[in-house]
This record gives sequence, C-alpha cells and structure tokens, in this order.
Amino acid sequence: MEDLSGDPIADLITSFNELNSSTAEELDEEPSPLEFMRYVARNTPFVVRGGAVDWQAIKRWNANYLREQLAGHRVNVAVTPFGNADAPTPMEGQDELVFAKPHEEDQHFEEFLKYLTTQEKGGLGGEVRYAQTQNDNLRNEYSFLYSQVPPSIPFARIALQKRPDAINMWIGSSQSVTALHRDNYENVYVQVAGSKHFVLLPALCQPCVNERELVPASYSRREDHLHLETEEGDKVPFAVWDPDEPEMRATKYSHLATPLRVTLNPGDMLYLPAMWYHKVSQSCSEEGICVAVNYWYDMEFSGPLYPLTSLVRTLGNQVTK
Amino acid sequence: MEDLSGDPIADLITSFNELNSSTAEELDEEPSPLEFMRYVARNTPFVVRGGAVDWQAIKRWNANYLREQLAGHRVNVAVTPFGNADAPTPMEGQDELVFAKPHEEDQHFEEFLKYLTTQEKGGLGGEVRYAQTQNDNLRNEYSFLYSQVPPSIPFARIALQKRPDAINMWIGSSQSVTALHRDNYENVYVQVAGSKHFVLLPALCQPCVNERELVPASYSRREDHLHLETEEGDKVPFAVWDPDEPEMRATKYSHLATPLRVTLNPGDMLYLPAMWYHKVSQSCSEEGICVAVNYWYDMEFSGPLYPLTSLVRTLGNQVTK
Repeated sequence: MEDLSGDPIADLITSFNELNSSTAEELDEEPSPLEFMRYVARNTPFVVRGGAVDWQAIKRWNANYLREQLAGHRVNVAVTPFGNADAPTPMEGQDELVFAKPHEEDQHFEEFLKYLTTQEKGGLGGEVRYAQTQNDNLRNEYSFLYSQVPPSIPFARIALQKRPDAINMWIGSSQSVTALHRDNYENVYVQVAGSKHFVLLPALCQPCVNERELVPASYSRREDHLHLETEEGDKVPFAVWDPDEPEMRATKYSHLATPLRVTLNPGDMLYLPAMWYHKVSQSCSEEGICVAVNYWYDMEFSGPLYPLTSLVRTLGNQVTK
Repeated sequence: MEDLSGDPIADLITSFNELNSSTAEELDEEPSPLEFMRYVARNTPFVVRGGAVDWQAIKRWNANYLREQLAGHRVNVAVTPFGNADAPTPMEGQDELVFAKPHEEDQHFEEFLKYLTTQEKGGLGGEVRYAQTQNDNLRNEYSFLYSQVPPSIPFARIALQKRPDAINMWIGSSQSVTALHRDNYENVYVQVAGSKHFVLLPALCQPCVNERELVPASYSRREDHLHLETEEGDKVPFAVWDPDEPEMRATKYSHLATPLRVTLNPGDMLYLPAMWYHKVSQSCSEEGICVAVNYWYDMEFSGPLYPLTSLVRTLGNQVTK
C-alpha cells in the first residue's frame, strides 16, 4: 500500500473520519426546522425511525392497492439485464466500462407489477425492471397516489424555504441496485414497502470513488435479449469504485473511506445531505416489491461548501486518473 | 501576472466569488434562530443595523460613564509603538517580519482612558494603547459592566445550543489596527462607541493571504521607548498580506480576493462566521474612544467545512511559501 503520510488528500479524509461519527444519527421523531437546519449546516445524515408511519402511503401502498389504483395506466420502466440502470458496466467481452443507461419503455402497471412479484417470489432470472424515472414522477405519472404523501416535508420546507424540486416514486425489486453516485440536492428519502440499504460517503471522499469518464451506452430490446450499444455524445464522469467490493477498482485513497451503512424499513425517513455519495440496494416486502418515495430540494450553492467540493473533485481526479 | 487558468486554487476562489455576494447582507432586525442557522450553514456574514440599540451598554457607555464605573480599577492594556498588537512587523533596520506581541501592563482605568482621549483628540503621537485581552474580559476584568449587555445573543444561543465561550470588551482608538487573521469561533460583534471597519475574506482565500511562519517577538518598556525583542518558542503562522495594500507581499492568488467591507456604527451587530479572515480598524466617537463587545461561540468541527478548510491551508502554503 502506498505511503500516504503527508498527503493532503489522505489527511483530509482521515481528519474528517476522526471528527465525525461512522454511523448515521438515529432520531425517534421528526426534527424541528431548526434542528434540521443544524444537520444541513453540518452536511450530516440522520434517520428518523418511523418518521412517516402515519402517512397514508405507508398504510395503504401494498401490491394489491397499487394494482387497483393504477389499473389501466402505463408507466415508464427501466429495463436492464442485471439491475444495472445508470451503472458502470463492462461491454460484453471487454474490460472497459461504459455508463449503461437502461432500456426505457412504457408498460401496463399491472403487467410491470406482476413481473416484479413473480420474478422476486420465484427467484427467477431474466431481465430486471425498475420504475425509477426521477423526474418528479409522483406528481406526474403516479399523480393518482400523490395525495397520500405530504406535498412537502414540513421541517425541510420551513428550514430550506423551498418546495421540493421533485418528488420521486421508486418501485423495484431486490434485483436492482443503484450504483454509487451523488446528486446536487438535499434529499429526504422515505421507505414505503420492503427495505433499502444505503451505503453513504461524504462528498470529500471523491478521491476514494475512482471517478472515470465513461462512454455512454444504452440497452435496447433485440428479439430475445437486451443489447448494450455505445452512444455518441459527452462522456459521463462516474464513480467506478464499489464500497461493497473495496479491493476492486480502488484508488490509493479508497481504503481510507469509512462508509456509513443505513437500512430503511417501512415508515423510516433518511436525510441524505447534498452531494453525499450513495449506493442503494433493496430487499422486498413479502409481496415481492420495494417501494420508496424521495423529496429533492435544491441545495445551496452559495457559501464555501460547493466550491470546496469541486476543488476536491479536481484534485482527486488529477491524482487518481 | 502569472497565468492561473486551470489552476485548482484559482478556480476555487473565482467560483466562490461568482456564487457569492461581494457585500455583506444587511438586516434591519435580529434574525430568528432558524434564520441565523441558515447563515451559519452558508458560513456567510450579515449585519444587523441597530440590532443592539436597546442595550444598556449602547445607551450608557460613554467616556464619563466608563470612567465613573471603573474608577480605581486597573485594567490590562496592550502597548505598542504603532497600534500593531499581534501584527506582522519588521524588526528595526531589517526586512524580515516577526509576529509582534504587545507590551502588556496593568493601568489605572482613568489614566488609560485619559491617554486614549487626549492622544486621539490632540492628534498626538506616542505609544498606542488598546484594551483587547480577548480572554472573556467582560465577565472578569470588566465584570462591573457585564450586566449591561445580554449574557448571550438569544438567536445564537438557541441556534447553536451553546453559551458563549468568551465575551470580550475592546476599548481603543483610531491608532490601533487588528491585523488580518482568523479564529475558530462563530463571532457576534457589537459596536458600542465609535466605528469599526472590517475587511472580510472567507477561509478559502487562505492562498491569498500569504501565510508565513513568523518568529515571535514582544515589546517591552525600555526607559523612553518600546523595545521589540524576538523570543524562543514556536513560530507563529500568520497572514502577511494586507488587503488594504494589495500589491505588497501578495501571492499569485491575492488579486483574486474580493474582500467584503463593513463598517459598524454604535448599536450595529455583525455576524462574522467561523474561520473568516478579518482585518479591523477603528474610528473614534467624538469623545475619542472606540468601544465594542464581541461574543465567541465554539464552532462546529464536525461536518466537511473544517477539514476542507485545513486542506486549502495545506495546499495554499505548499504553493505560496
């Protein structure tokens, strides 16, 4: 292992680790707006166990209910061979990774749901389907259900003085994994059915995640299989290190990362601070589905945190590429 | 001028400048704890014009009143030839800068005050005196006056969930200047008599301030003059760039700094965020004094801001030393 003594980036990460907890704080009720703002100021995650248990969504959204409510509707579904939508993926027969975007198609909701539950309960192979459009779909595609969640998270609305930029519905199975990435949003994530398993890293761990410029590629249906084809267009900068396989594709800094691990069960709420890296995998309810809702609030770009995070990215990429 | 295109530190500073105002925000009443916490989260200063006008201190603390209240008391006074307490200073006849600590002595308050006002009103030369101990002196040396200020700033106490670590009294004249430096404290500064002129830079401007390791030195009285002598002991890392003489002792980044300038008049309150560089000069009231009080609250060391600020310091010193 390379000697990192005196290395400014190694010092940054170890100093952060020394000053911060390696577990996410657990609250047993929602924070006040001021309490929430203290977490935003520290850019530090927390979980509210049972914070959303009283939501109608938590009480009602089982497979039967969703099937009834969305009967006759078509929804956008991401289709991949391995549950690898928006993930670094080797092209067949090659070592080089590309950024694999899913095949997207509209499906009858009943058919989509039946596929998920049958595959999950039967332990079957085959293509993996995930409703994960992240385009404010709960106020659009799934607007029939929107009245069963709050239009905003009160503590976040009051603290941040913003309405959510997007409210996203996620319906999938244990086959899908969201690869390690980060978003420029303050994120409140609520589990509805099944469980989500988060692996979290602060933005300053950028030098650990091995960001590479990946050629974009997309899956498309070809008779009996999904075909991955590269695309023209800008390369996609993306983390290729996986904290669950820490020896593979590691940078010289990866071993310094101390990921926080959080599992959300139905009714739990996670504050995922802006710019934190997160990898998300899923377990299903007994019915064979995993359902969640998240609220994205625009982050604050003024102040020092955003430009400092960009600096670390520049330095990280200089050293690790 | 050196070409800084593509320089990560130059990009950091210009990106911060683009995303932030070059003036301090002005409020016309105190913020709520939540509003204050938003500024803490952004690590961004603001001024509350007239925020302290109702304090007894603001109404009462003129020269006569202070003289009466402190009659017979001795106070610690910092004495320097040029108003340069705790400032980078050339040794006589040399170019090299040392970190000049003042001669400190106890003086009868009446004598100290008379010296200040006589010198100020007469435009006289001679040694410069400044009561500036920064050791919680308002709750100790000046405890007779402490009841005339709030024991804490309510919005800060509630937001930060802390009592002030120190409450400091400052009594000086236009002869004294506090050299550019930074503190690991959230700072609420209140002007009582006369005016203070702040020049402010965010912590990420460290590469602009030309931090050097200065040999410590102290003034002592020698018959008819103050003698500056170097001391054994650790060197003092200190900014030697002066934003008011930007061409002198500049680094290649200094010209990128866009200092915020704020003048506080009696009753005005400044939130000076943790780790911001500040240079402070003074104007006197008609009586020939300048009086202020400040509250230091421990800053938050968890979260990414402190380790990121340390990284910038390491990088800045590597490049500019």
